Amino acid sequence: LLVRHAGKVIREKYFREIANGAKVLSLALTEPESGSDSTKIRTFAEKKGNKYVVKGHKIFISRVKYSDFMILVARTKPYEKVERKTEGITLFVVDLREVKEGSIEMREIRTMSNTAAYELFIDGLEIPEENVIGEVDKGFYYLLDLLNAERFMIAAEMIGNAEWFINKASEYAKNRVVFDKPIGSYQGVQFPLAKVYAELEAVKAYFNEGLKYLEEGSDVKGIGNYANISKYLATEIAWEAGNVAMDIYGGYGYAVDSNVERKLRETRLYKVAPVSQNLVLAYVAHHILNLPRSY
Amino acid sequence: LLVRHAGKVIREKYFREIANGAKVLSLALTEPESGSDSTKIRTFAEKKGNKYVVKGHKIFISRVKYSDFMILVARTKPYEKVERKTEGITLFVVDLREVKEGSIEMREIRTMSNTAAYELFIDGLEIPEENVIGEVDKGFYYLLDLLNAERFMIAAEMIGNAEWFINKASEYAKNRVVFDKPIGSYQGVQFPLAKVYAELEAVKAYFNEGLKYLEEGSDVKGIGNYANISKYLATEIAWEAGNVAMDIYGGYGYAVDSNVERKLRETRLYKVAPVSQNLVLAYVAHHILNLPRSY
Amino acid sequence: LLVRHAGKVIREKYFREIANGAKVLSLALTEPESGSDSTKIRTFAEKKGNKYVVKGHKIFISRVKYSDFMILVARTKPYEKVERKTEGITLFVVDLREVKEGSIEMREIRTMSNTAAYELFIDGLEIPEENVIGEVDKGFYYLLDLLNAERFMIAAEMIGNAEWFINKASEYAKNRVVFDKPIGSYQGVQFPLAKVYAELEAVKAYFNEGLKYLEEGSDVKGIGNYANISKYLATEIAWEAGNVAMDIYGGYGYAVDSNVERKLRETRLYKVAPVSQNLVLAYVAHHILNLPRSY
Amino acid sequence: LLVRHAGKVIREKYFREIANGAKVLSLALTEPESGSDSTKIRTFAEKKGNKYVVKGHKIFISRVKYSDFMILVARTKPYEKVERKTEGITLFVVDLREVKEGSIEMREIRTMSNTAAYELFIDGLEIPEENVIGEVDKGFYYLLDLLNAERFMIAAEMIGNAEWFINKASEYAKNRVVFDKPIGSYQGVQFPLAKVYAELEAVKAYFNEGLKYLEEGSDVKGIGNYANISKYLATEIAWEAGNVAMDIYGGYGYAVDSNVERKLRETRLYKVAPVSQNLVLAYVAHHILNLPRSY
Ligand SMILES: Cc1cc2nc3c(=O)[nH]c(=O)nc-3n(C[C@H](O)[C@H](O)[C@H](O)COP(=O)(O)OP(=O)(O)OC[C@H]3O[C@@H](n4cnc5c(N)ncnc54)[C@H](O)[C@@H]3O)c2cc1C
Ligand SMILES: Cc1cc2nc3c(=O)[nH]c(=O)nc-3n(C[C@H](O)[C@H](O)[C@H](O)COP(=O)(O)OP(=O)(O)OC[C@H]3O[C@@H](n4cnc5c(N)ncnc54)[C@H](O)[C@@H]3O)c2cc1C
Ligand SMILES: Cc1cc2nc3c(=O)[nH]c(=O)nc-3n(C[C@H](O)[C@H](O)[C@H](O)COP(=O)(O)OP(=O)(O)OC[C@H]3O[C@@H](n4cnc5c(N)ncnc54)[C@H](O)[C@@H]3O)c2cc1C
Ligand SMILES: Cc1cc2nc3c(=O)[nH]c(=O)nc-3n(C[C@H](O)[C@H](O)[C@H](O)COP(=O)(O)OP(=O)(O)OC[C@H]3O[C@@H](n4cnc5c(N)ncnc54)[C@H](O)[C@@H]3O)c2cc1C
Repeated sequence: LLVRHAGKVIREKYFREIANGAKVLSLALTEPESGSDSTKIRTFAEKKGNKYVVKGHKIFISRVKYSDFMILVARTKPYEKVERKTEGITLFVVDLREVKEGSIEMREIRTMSNTAAYELFIDGLEIPEENVIGEVDKGFYYLLDLLNAERFMIAAEMIGNAEWFINKASEYAKNRVVFDKPIGSYQGVQFPLAKVYAELEAVKAYFNEGLKYLEEGSDVKGIGNYANISKYLATEIAWEAGNVAMDIYGGYGYAVDSNVERKLRETRLYKVAPVSQNLVLAYVAHHILNLPRSY
Repeated sequence: LLVRHAGKVIREKYFREIANGAKVLSLALTEPESGSDSTKIRTFAEKKGNKYVVKGHKIFISRVKYSDFMILVARTKPYEKVERKTEGITLFVVDLREVKEGSIEMREIRTMSNTAAYELFIDGLEIPEENVIGEVDKGFYYLLDLLNAERFMIAAEMIGNAEWFINKASEYAKNRVVFDKPIGSYQGVQFPLAKVYAELEAVKAYFNEGLKYLEEGSDVKGIGNYANISKYLATEIAWEAGNVAMDIYGGYGYAVDSNVERKLRETRLYKVAPVSQNLVLAYVAHHILNLPRSY
Repeated sequence: LLVRHAGKVIREKYFREIANGAKVLSLALTEPESGSDSTKIRTFAEKKGNKYVVKGHKIFISRVKYSDFMILVARTKPYEKVERKTEGITLFVVDLREVKEGSIEMREIRTMSNTAAYELFIDGLEIPEENVIGEVDKGFYYLLDLLNAERFMIAAEMIGNAEWFINKASEYAKNRVVFDKPIGSYQGVQFPLAKVYAELEAVKAYFNEGLKYLEEGSDVKGIGNYANISKYLATEIAWEAGNVAMDIYGGYGYAVDSNVERKLRETRLYKVAPVSQNLVLAYVAHHILNLPRSY
Repeated sequence: LLVRHAGKVIREKYFREIANGAKVLSLALTEPESGSDSTKIRTFAEKKGNKYVVKGHKIFISRVKYSDFMILVARTKPYEKVERKTEGITLFVVDLREVKEGSIEMREIRTMSNTAAYELFIDGLEIPEENVIGEVDKGFYYLLDLLNAERFMIAAEMIGNAEWFINKASEYAKNRVVFDKPIGSYQGVQFPLAKVYAELEAVKAYFNEGLKYLEEGSDVKGIGNYANISKYLATEIAWEAGNVAMDIYGGYGYAVDSNVERKLRETRLYKVAPVSQNLVLAYVAHHILNLPRSY
């Protein structure tokens, strides 16, 4: 999906490799001072001849050490000099196999799940002009596309996790006997499972509706709504399902071998990344319900 | 919808009137000792010649005083004498305009909302044989159809209520100014609204999926799943939306004039009727997740 | 409690009557444009000789038609002319038996519960100078005292309601047999009850701690904390308990005769009055956790 | 606390060492087939001369590799031969420094948090007769005491965690600036913090009430109530606080360096151990509310 969007904006050069799925791709957007508020990024790409020279500091960039490409989001005009803060941002494809020694230092950040995330100290990184995605200074609009695609992907993953939790926990509940009965026969065990199952069904229906919409591909605002709300709902339900599964597994859920706790830790991430649940709620309030802005 | 189902089981006699919507229809199932556990009904219809003579006690029968017809659920074989407890139950159409004086005494039950519900003391009620719906003793299976249809209807109504609450509350939040700003600009007001909006979208998608399924009409089990889960989710979301609206309206929600409190009271009913949320959860656990029975 | 506070500010005149409990007392603070934001009240009391002449519009004043006294909160200096918005507010005791014909018009507001609340149109109401409570223009500080006392009282009432709901529902759950067992033996019934019981125990402990604090009476800030948080927690728990009871009673909870629905409706009020739950949370955030103001 | 209870039952031998805190103590109760339902343990201690010889299989025994002592719970009469299933259970002190080579094999279980837990395969373990705690076959009653003490301890720890989360998150929220303001000024951030703060205050009040009760030490049933409910409430609130903190920290909470995720993982354990939240609810339902047993 990510690929398709990058492709859409004429990235022929790396297109084939990426489309073949052979090459892992990272997105480098977040900075220490700019998480939710992306327009505040300070990483700067200065035009020098037919190259851009980049200086900046990125954080929490997933998998980047093992990626061949990275989509880098940087300012090409300083925040202070643009009229609309969404302007002056450009997207670049960085071929990580070709970067000059020392121009990107990567430091691993250990996290709750096993996702490998990195802090990048970028200094003197050179990117050829033709690696700009789309138009210079207009990157924010492509970024939104990219982020919407990412939200759909995460929603899909979270729905998968929720199903995994429910299936595993149901199976366990049928077989684990405590107080002479399978625990699945106690409503204190079966009702939370049934509740999360029912809610998940609704999230799936909504997500599928969104996918159809995305494929028809007409209405950008509509797609943003589906992308954001799907990400929000799918993460909530996966987290709920994960907790239900943990409870049902008792001590065994806590043991690494069950895999339940690992999936739970992986799921937790999507409450805050790539966009926090709060900001989705604000999106719904501002852009769908047309309530006055809260920040 | 109800009509269609009654129709399906060859009730030509009253079909036209009912289909014209002219005539209000009630369903008389619940008894003092038999709410959730419908097979325990004791109202008994005894065959006498080409008539059935009914004796029994029904409770919480909505609108019956203003209805022309009532679908009456009664035992035609006693609970103790059937092998499967779902057998020996028969459905009758009762033409309320023709019942013999004194054979049904109606006593009003005042309730939280303005739904008029009645207690029925039935003694010596005569129903012509041809008013049996479908096969004698097999009424429970038609009943399930009827109840599924009812659950879809209630889900539709609850989704409507949820939308009404959200719209009204959004409008109010845009205009009510407290501490010099519209309250809709405070996240403590806008986030609960946004959350319930997002959740409602999912419920709607699921409900619509179910409706399509119902229209295709193939798979009975699938329809039961959609009917039950739709009723469950739609009621939860309507109740949540109603409470959000009440909170946003502040004192004004509590005032009768706002209509908010009235809709809230109406909504509350569907947490327990026509089937309680608990029993839907048990349905999901037993029939979908295949967990061992909990009762 | 209210009495004690009024008393503290030397209202000897009516003290005895009120202390005897013979005379119902109302507090007239809320106005159409000023609910949560009390300093915005516009009702104005102008000094004329040794009297104050009042003009204004109050709303949602409980019981006032049946009260002998009313504590009236009014501006004695306009909002625009004070430096701190909490200044220029004065508290008056109004002897409702002596008000001049036509100077207060009362219009009943029908509400969700049976609490009688009134809208007051005040014009030309004369209050003798000696009925000022405490110092002129400094009423806001006495008001806080009064409101704290009111919050304790409401917390007490809500704790009482929660206990009532739990006891009634437990009793019912022991006796109502559905599917051949008392419903209290199903975890879907007993767990919500047990949960709300456990939570209530904590609220009671906290409230009692607060009462002791209040009696020792030293630290004003501490008392405000206890008053606000007690009101918040007690209302949440009473509402939860009420809903649990409603669910357990099934259709019977919805029937007026059970009294359950009446208590539920009464309980709902305290989510928004006399202070909304949101504003308590803001109080905790700003005054206890020292977070930056959100409005 | 644990020590005091062991002491109470005349364990003078190891008393001093343990009381000095020098020696870590483990409790070996749980078995693969017997978690929540402790009376089902199969580990058996057979009297041979003045020794007991133990054979069995324990699981999830914390810290045992680094402990000097272990309280071992074993059957001295088989489950099938006792009238009341709580009989025939005995508590032993095992001096782990003196166990015969090969009589306890320990296998580490990796868990979500860093708590080291072990599976024990016990075969031919000899325990001198004088290491029996209290009376033979009556161990279950001492065990309850021990477990109550443990629940108080865990409640204390969880309250500590909740405070830690709230303080850390408040501090962070004051300083982290996003969209040009400290995030603590957004109600979407400050309200969840305020809510969990308020609820925690109540849990603390209840816990302190319980501690006083414990010190007065009269009423065993009352102590069990406080121990169970404190454990339940404190774990719920700590988990809620931990999740609030994680959300507020955004990506930084997910990073190992913040310590937030570590405390969150540690907290999760107490939802299921040493007793699951479900079983506390069942305890409240059965023993306090006197509802019919649900299993
Ligand atoms: C393991 C991991 C992998 C990641 N991978 C990548 C990656 O590959 N590429 C990349 O670019 N980034 C990545 N990220 C970063 C991630 O996208 C950010 O963490 C996320 O965008 C949130 O930003 P933040 O952490 O700075 O939170 P902040 O923006 O500091 O937010 C902190 C909290 O404040 C709240 N908040 C902020 N503003 C408001 C407001 N106005 N109203 C209400 N609440 C508000 C938020 O909801 C959140 O709860 C990753 C992060 C992690 C932990
Ligand atoms: C205003 C109103 C209008 C109505 N209109 C009609 C009508 O038109 N026609 C009609 O036939 N009926 C009508 N009803 C009745 C309604 O359908 C019943 O109230 C409903 O079926 C629940 O039955 P009950 O009230 O007997 O609850 P009960 O069956 O007594 O249940 C009480 C509680 O116990 C729980 N419970 C029961 N068994 C279990 C279990 N095994 N596991 C877990 N929890 C369990 C339930 O969830 C519920 O919370 C109406 C009711 C009302 C209030
Ligand atoms: C039956 C009844 C009896 C009453 N009795 C009395 C009485 O005897 N005397 C009296 O003086 N008053 C009385 N009141 C009035 C009551 O005190 C007010 O309704 C209450 O103070 C709330 O004010 P409001 O209704 O104007 O709500 P608003 O102030 O309009 O608030 C509306 C909503 O916005 C939210 N909100 C407002 N500001 C913020 C913010 N900054 N951040 C987040 N959320 C915010 C509130 O939480 C609330 O949810 C009564 C009300 C009722 C319904
Ligand atoms: C890290 C860790 C450290 C531990 N340390 C120790 C230790 O030092 N010593 C020790 O003895 N033990 C220890 N334990 C074990 C712990 O006490 C048990 O895990 C706990 O008692 C639960 O038992 P279980 O895992 O077998 O769950 P089960 O008993 O299998 O329960 C599984 C699920 O079913 C539910 N359930 C069971 N019965 C019912 C019912 N009747 N009604 C409703 N729900 C029900 C439970 O609530 C739970 O959610 C540890 C566990 C872990 C994970």
